[in-house]
This record gives sequence, structure tokens and C-alpha cells, in this order.
Amino acid sequence: MNDLLERARQGKARAIARLISLVENDAAAAREVTSGLYKFTGKAYVVGITGPPGCGKSTLVNEMALRLGSSGGSVGIIAIDPSSPFTGGALLGDRVRMADIAARDGIFVRSMASRGNLGGLAEATSTTIKILDAAGFDTILVETVGAGQAEVDIASVAHTVLVVEAPDSGDEVQTFKAGIMEIADIFVVNKADRPAASRTVRALEMMLHTGSPAAGGHHTSQQSDVEEIESTSHMAGSWVIPVLETIARDGKGIDELLLKVAEHKSYLDDSGEWNRREERRSRREIERIMQNQIISRTVQNVLPQKRDRVVTAVANREMDPYAAADELFDLANRYPP
Amino acid sequence: MNDLLERARQGKARAIARLISLVENDAAAAREVTSGLYKFTGKAYVVGITGPPGCGKSTLVNEMALRLGSSGGSVGIIAIDPSSPFTGGALLGDRVRMADIAARDGIFVRSMASRGNLGGLAEATSTTIKILDAAGFDTILVETVGAGQAEVDIASVAHTVLVVEAPDSGDEVQTFKAGIMEIADIFVVNKADRPAASRTVRALEMMLHTGSPAAGGHHTSQQSDVEEIESTSHMAGSWVIPVLETIARDGKGIDELLLKVAEHKSYLDDSGEWNRREERRSRREIERIMQNQIISRTVQNVLPQKRDRVVTAVANREMDPYAAADELFDLANRYPP
Repeated sequence: MNDLLERARQGKARAIARLISLVENDAAAAREVTSGLYKFTGKAYVVGITGPPGCGKSTLVNEMALRLGSSGGSVGIIAIDPSSPFTGGALLGDRVRMADIAARDGIFVRSMASRGNLGGLAEATSTTIKILDAAGFDTILVETVGAGQAEVDIASVAHTVLVVEAPDSGDEVQTFKAGIMEIADIFVVNKADRPAASRTVRALEMMLHTGSPAAGGHHTSQQSDVEEIESTSHMAGSWVIPVLETIARDGKGIDELLLKVAEHKSYLDDSGEWNRREERRSRREIERIMQNQIISRTVQNVLPQKRDRVVTAVANREMDPYAAADELFDLANRYPP
Repeated sequence: MNDLLERARQGKARAIARLISLVENDAAAAREVTSGLYKFTGKAYVVGITGPPGCGKSTLVNEMALRLGSSGGSVGIIAIDPSSPFTGGALLGDRVRMADIAARDGIFVRSMASRGNLGGLAEATSTTIKILDAAGFDTILVETVGAGQAEVDIASVAHTVLVVEAPDSGDEVQTFKAGIMEIADIFVVNKADRPAASRTVRALEMMLHTGSPAAGGHHTSQQSDVEEIESTSHMAGSWVIPVLETIARDGKGIDELLLKVAEHKSYLDDSGEWNRREERRSRREIERIMQNQIISRTVQNVLPQKRDRVVTAVANREMDPYAAADELFDLANRYPP
């Protein structure tokens, strides 16, 4: 293992790939890998890209990686496959497209599947980010469907979050998924050559403009000075969330997007927000590990028959779930491992 | 509190509403309410209804409740509002529609908001189901956007899960959200008067037919006998997931849907699946309570300065997150509350 960690640190692609497979298949490996590599992390810039299926995320990520790569940066891509066996086809298509760029120097592509274990996927993704960080990749692009509590909480692992939408072809423009508006640092309307694109951009700008301060700022390009001064939710020096248009398939708008991403990184550095996000990420990660820990201690320290008896008693209404949790909690901690 | 619990048990609407407000606003109340009412639960039939924004879930739920009510059953509706301030308008519209039916005898409607605290919403929803169950409601309809880990894990609280889709007006029929296919007991294509409806139904049937056995069964209406015999994923006596069409706005297809729902309930009873789902629900609930417990014990038993120091050490790479979690875990359990 130590040899593998050392070779991954030197950026050897095969060692990196083997480490990732280890943490994907064995939850215990995440601890060992993290302990060994964590002190070498903290240099990579992590960008999360999220949005609904069919919005063109993968193509966008490919284009971003190619341009970052050709200007001399090294890029790691983590593409998170949701767990559905039903969408296998579409995602496989994405992966085939991604194979085009995987052969380039300085670009490492890895797709990760949840295999029905969502907690495990969050842990494996977070550890994979650390592996690529320690291996010296400048930028790590993490692509995932959805946001918030869905699959992987992208806002808690990324420094910058891009939310990608395709122009809405239906008659409900306001159907942006709840929870996703709050985590966006940059909005991207991809497939901007479609007729509904400008309507989608306007709808997003309106939502940002009328939304609560919880959004962290809002777009002001069409506001007059008077409106800006009067607006109580606009804070001096805060990030103004932009809405950009791209046609990733034709490579259009990508340079502008990368400029905006670089601008957000400067904002994070200058404002102290980078450190706040690192603290937030650390806090959530510690909590997640502790929550996994209480379950694994229960599995280790309480006999399966006892666990099953308690669950059955709750199912049969002989015991309430809080009393059951208290009992198992104490048993789990009685024999510290 | 005891008086309030007793009146809720007698089905008094005001006591029920007050109890729900208590558990929404105070996590500690969930424990007290559950301890007091849990032994009176287990009789209600819980149906989860989920699907993307704009698919017409609320109208469908209204129609189902009205018909169940007029055939003599009592119905509780829990409508879960996702946390986005941006979608407030659309959801408010739903709630206004729901007010129409809230005045009827035997129907109780409650909408719940997450207020940014997703863990808290899961606990409040699960407790609200118990309150309505103990209050004697025959059927509880739980309406939520999305599925899986999003917002509330509907599959772990409901006996039967309806997944509602609107006909897909775009060119990507296969964009059904990952994770949602696996939890459906019944698919509903609402707004079936739209031109794309039959295409959406066919796409769903095809996915069910070609999907993995993880889906728990599949639709066989267009399969020949030979195919059925050869299909290894089809289990004798298992539930065949149907795809139904409704036009909820015009009340079309609702009776057929309710018949299918009743059929699924019989299937759950006859196959022993009801008990298995109760055990699964109990297991997840106990785990969730234990996971909340370890975090609240940390907050209670570890000084905030100490917690902050550990988080900062992780953010600064002076300590790895597993070592930090171990340290806080031990401190949290050192002084049992």
C-alpha cells in the first residue's frame, strides 16, 4: 500500500487508478488512503459540474478539460454515474465520448458508479478527489447529475459549482430543481443554439434577481445603479452569480466560461471564501465519517441476532425507534474497537 | 403534551396540526411524540407519490384523496415542499389548489417545508406519518419531488410508491432520473392527453422490460409466453410494475389507478412484502436516529472551541478527517448524557 501511495503521489496513472478501485470496493481502504495522502492535499482547485440528464454536461466537461490541458494545466475528471441500471445506455455513451480525451497527457478520467450504496459513493468520491489532489492535478472536475442530497453533495466537495441547464422546451420554465439554485456559483445554459435558450437565460436571471439572499448574490447586468444601491440582498464585494451561454458540442462559449471560473477562483482567494469552504467541507466530512462509524460499530459490536430482534420489535410496534436506537447506540459503544 | 397526544389520537384536527408544528420546529419533540404514539401506529396504508416538478402530482393526489374520501375512507395528505425559495410560486399554487379539499370531512392536508434542514425534514415527515397513523387515518398520501436520497427517502416510508411522469416533450425520452426507476411500484404517465404520452409510456415499458431485476419485477403485457418463461429476472408471484395513464385535471384514469393501488396493497399483504417493508423502514429509521444522535452528542459533550479547533486542523491539513472523527467520537461518548 505504501508503495502504491508513493507512486500515486508521483502522478503515475496506473497507481492512481488502482487506488481509486481500492476505495470504490472497500470502505476500509478510504481511511488508509486518506491517512497516507491527506497531508499532501489542498492544492487542487475542485470544480463541480451538475445539471439534469441530457443537458450536455459531459461534452462541456470534455471541452473544459481539453482547453485547460492545452494551456498546460493537468486535469482530473471524476464522472459520477448514478445508480440506475436503466440509464446505463446514455451514460455509456458519455463515457465513450470521454475516452477521446483520456489518452491525452495531463488528463485523467475516471467514472464512478454508486452500485446502490449512496453513502459509499460519497466517501469514495471524496477520497478520489484527495488521491488526484495529492497526485498533483491542478484542476479536478467533478461531474454529477442533480445536486443537494442527491447522490453526491457536490457543494460540499467543490470550491466552485457550475449548474448546467438545457433550454427548457416545455411550457414550465420555472421547474428548476429545488436546492440546485442555492448551490450555483455560475449558471450555464448549454445547447444555447436552441430557440428556448434566451427564455431560459431570462428565467434564471429573474430567479436570481428576485430570489432570497440565500442564493449568495445575484445577477445585476440588467439592473440600474439605483436598483443596486437599494437592493438589500446585494453585499459589497460578494460574488454576482452569472448566467453564461455555451454550445459545448461546437466549442462555443467555453473560453468565456473558463475565464469566469478563473474569476471565481480569484474571488474565493481574495474574499477568504476559499478557507470558509475548506472549513465547511472538513466539518461535513468529519460528520459523515462519524455517522458511518456509529453504524459500523453497531455491526461490529452487536450480534446480528440482537440487531434483528430490535428491528423486528420496532416493526411490530413492541418498541419505539428512539428506544431501539438508544439501546443499539449503547451496545455499539460498550466495547470500543 | 399528554393531553395533546390523546386528542390527536381521537382524530381532533387542531391537536394533530399542533403536534405536527411541534415536530417541525423542534427536533426533540419528535422523540417525545413518537414514544407516546408509536404503539398506536401500524394500521395506516402509506402511499408515496413522487415525480418531477410540473408533472401534475398535486392534482393527482387531490383526485385520489377525493375519491378515497367519498367512498368512506379517511385520508391524510403530507405534501413536502422542497427548500428552494425560487420555486415558492409554483408550490404556492399547488397549496391553493389543495385548500379546496382540506375542508372536507375525513381529509387532512398538511404541507411541510424543509427550511434548509434536510435531515430534519426526514425526521419531521416520518413523525407526521406516525401522528396521522395513530389518529386513525386509513390512507396517508405522501407527495414529494424527486426520490432516493433527495429530500425525503420516499421508498423507506411508503408501502407503495407511485412514480409520476409527464409526457416528455423534449427529444430525450430516456432522461428518467436515476434512482427513481428502482423505487416505483406503479408508474403513472399523467397529462396523458399530450401527444408525447404514448411515446413516454412505451419508453417506460421498454425500460422496465430491459431493466435489471433490481427493479423488483417488470411489465409483461407485451411479452409472449416464451419470453416470460425464458426471462430469468421474472419471479413467480412477484409484482409486475404497471404503467398507467391519467389526466388528473379531468379526473380521467384515477379509478383505474386506485384499483391498481388496492391491488398492490393486497400483493403486499399476501406475499409477506408488507412485513419486509416494515422491517426495512424500521431499520433505516433506527439508523437515522443513531446518526443524528452521534452528532447531537458531539454538540452536547464537546466544547464548541474544541470542535472548531479540530475542524480547522482538518481544513489546514494538520490532521486527517478520520483521525478528527475518531477524536470527536470518543469525546462525544465520554460523558454519556
